Amino acid sequence: MTRLTIEQSTTRPPRYPGVAEELDLDSWQDAPHSQWAFAHVSELVPTATIGHRTRADSGVDALTALDGVADLRAMLADSWTDAFLVQRDGRTIAEYYRPGFAPDDRHLLQSVSKSICGILVGTLVDDGLIDVGRTMASYVPELDGSAYGDATVQQVLDMTVAVEYEEDYRNPESHMQAQDRIAGWRPRRDTDPADTYEFLRGLKANGMHGRRFQYCSADTDALAWLVEAVTRERYPVVLAARVWERLRCAQDATITVDPSGFASANGGISCTAADLARVGWLMLGGGTIEGRRIVSEEWVRQTMAGGDRDVARNLLIQREYPRVSYRNQWWSTGNDRGNVYAVGIHGQYIWLDPQTGTVIVKFSSAPDPVSAAGNAIHARLFSEVCSALQD
Amino acid sequence: MTRLTIEQSTTRPPRYPGVAEELDLDSWQDAPHSQWAFAHVSELVPTATIGHRTRADSGVDALTALDGVADLRAMLADSWTDAFLVQRDGRTIAEYYRPGFAPDDRHLLQSVSKSICGILVGTLVDDGLIDVGRTMASYVPELDGSAYGDATVQQVLDMTVAVEYEEDYRNPESHMQAQDRIAGWRPRRDTDPADTYEFLRGLKANGMHGRRFQYCSADTDALAWLVEAVTRERYPVVLAARVWERLRCAQDATITVDPSGFASANGGISCTAADLARVGWLMLGGGTIEGRRIVSEEWVRQTMAGGDRDVARNLLIQREYPRVSYRNQWWSTGNDRGNVYAVGIHGQYIWLDPQTGTVIVKFSSAPDPVSAAGNAIHARLFSEVCSALQD
Repeated sequence: MTRLTIEQSTTRPPRYPGVAEELDLDSWQDAPHSQWAFAHVSELVPTATIGHRTRADSGVDALTALDGVADLRAMLADSWTDAFLVQRDGRTIAEYYRPGFAPDDRHLLQSVSKSICGILVGTLVDDGLIDVGRTMASYVPELDGSAYGDATVQQVLDMTVAVEYEEDYRNPESHMQAQDRIAGWRPRRDTDPADTYEFLRGLKANGMHGRRFQYCSADTDALAWLVEAVTRERYPVVLAARVWERLRCAQDATITVDPSGFASANGGISCTAADLARVGWLMLGGGTIEGRRIVSEEWVRQTMAGGDRDVARNLLIQREYPRVSYRNQWWSTGNDRGNVYAVGIHGQYIWLDPQTGTVIVKFSSAPDPVSAAGNAIHARLFSEVCSALQD
Repeated sequence: MTRLTIEQSTTRPPRYPGVAEELDLDSWQDAPHSQWAFAHVSELVPTATIGHRTRADSGVDALTALDGVADLRAMLADSWTDAFLVQRDGRTIAEYYRPGFAPDDRHLLQSVSKSICGILVGTLVDDGLIDVGRTMASYVPELDGSAYGDATVQQVLDMTVAVEYEEDYRNPESHMQAQDRIAGWRPRRDTDPADTYEFLRGLKANGMHGRRFQYCSADTDALAWLVEAVTRERYPVVLAARVWERLRCAQDATITVDPSGFASANGGISCTAADLARVGWLMLGGGTIEGRRIVSEEWVRQTMAGGDRDVARNLLIQREYPRVSYRNQWWSTGNDRGNVYAVGIHGQYIWLDPQTGTVIVKFSSAPDPVSAAGNAIHARLFSEVCSALQD
């Protein structure tokens, strides 16, 4: 797979206007790249924050509204909680932040990022820029020949693409860890593809699409490329304009970028718990928040209704939710409460309880990326909190 | 030079409390590091911003107060200006932001960062935590045997350390580019020291200290280590608490960090022009801003008085300012106006004009790091602007 340069591509937006060749870690300090790069250093080199105001107190414990939930603090401790925020009808009714983690601190969302991508794609479908029945290659010709080329947008949204991809977070030889390395999350190897564009083009199909749910982080990055192709803007720019600003989030979010500037849509967003709760409100609000429509009611209705249960087989999470499904980058439990959720490895959640109008956000740093025990404790926690609020 | 781990060091602060071993790009996603790392992803992986509010308009041109300055726009264009902000007695009287760069955008300061470090060291001297007459090794024993071990703090502040170090920005074999690679600003080589701590320990003396001014970026990083040693906090944390918060800057600044988390004090800060102007106000205010004292009047008086002119020899900038000197990480022109300044490669400036109470901030992306032509145009620009304000 040769590298896809901006010049060769009709779908890859430039990092900055008028770029003739791409910048890299060797050239960003040189003209003409420096003009853009000096204003975007955090995209090239890791950065620490020099705060301009005193950080909020960490170690918040305001859980009295949930006193009826047995073992609440034990469940939070046992699930390695960094933040736990319960809002009902837009008001915070309970919150917990571990010592050292403050309400205005950002936390990595991991795959909760995927569900935000789903909403963003929905806004583009609403505006007629994307038809979910069309193939990915019809928007991103460079994906032709890869697993994604002949997959429909809806198949990618629902993760029923048949792609040769091992989603094993702990195996250094897995596609997942290769994707991490290319994204800058792990040290590069010389043999790795240059960037995520090249990586996605190299993924091969291993069967018919649409037959089986296969959770695959690369699918979401393919959607991010689709977003860039139809807008000709970089993913973080489109996400800010169509979602983050319009939600009136209180703080900037960040998203990790690979050496080409491609944003890790599948897992790279960091934001505050309160801002993430607004994403939940948008969903419970049928696509509106505080009276502003952000995505269509129909998109949210479809998403909340869940996906095809029959294609979801042999999933660990089915021990908790036998009727679980995945639609538009969101999970549906299929349980009696109608809970829908976004989840990321190591314990990141947006939990929606339509019956009580409750949004729960949880940030965690569980040692295991995914585990049966982790699934069980979160299932119990969310179930008991929502039951306690059912009055 | 073996790597200096946190365990081996009495002066190197941990990235997060209670760390038993250090995290790296391979381990940050694993416990126990993940708890800290999931809240500090930008320190590990490059990140783009997902803005929460509409960015301010770029392309501001409000220069009418300087209509009397001949060729003003030509000088700004010819010096690759990204931002140009003139404040007098705390009020903006003229400003220019090029199309694409907005007043609330951050810009890399390059070596203007050094002058901010000088102020921070001053606050620690004021509080009795640092005696500038003592040697660096008396605070940082790990620097014993390096060029810095027997240098006094004042010699490092004034850059009269005799260190074998080639400050050549364009030579891949220079110490400067090695420091860049270790700082994460350029691709690493396998033979590079693991981090800036190790790099600094490996720098050797090549003569007697105090005899000659030698501009050396490593000196400022040695000061940052000193700051960490006497506070047992990381440099960005101390800088936020002692300077950025107390200045009441309007936005967070950022600073690049190396793989060990060591911040590039010598050149890695990015901030807005308006926030940087507050650093200038602090200096013109004799260490106070809006009635709040941040650093002692004595420290600012010494700094503004300039350094030893006799040790400054064979400097390109002497073509513009024959009596130039360097003190406490600030430059003094030695000219009749008494201009004192901070400067970074490619055209970054804080310019102080005590006679008119003027602070000028300039961000640029000149193709050359340093050039006689660049020095000349900036000297003319600042001189003519300050003259025009002298009425």
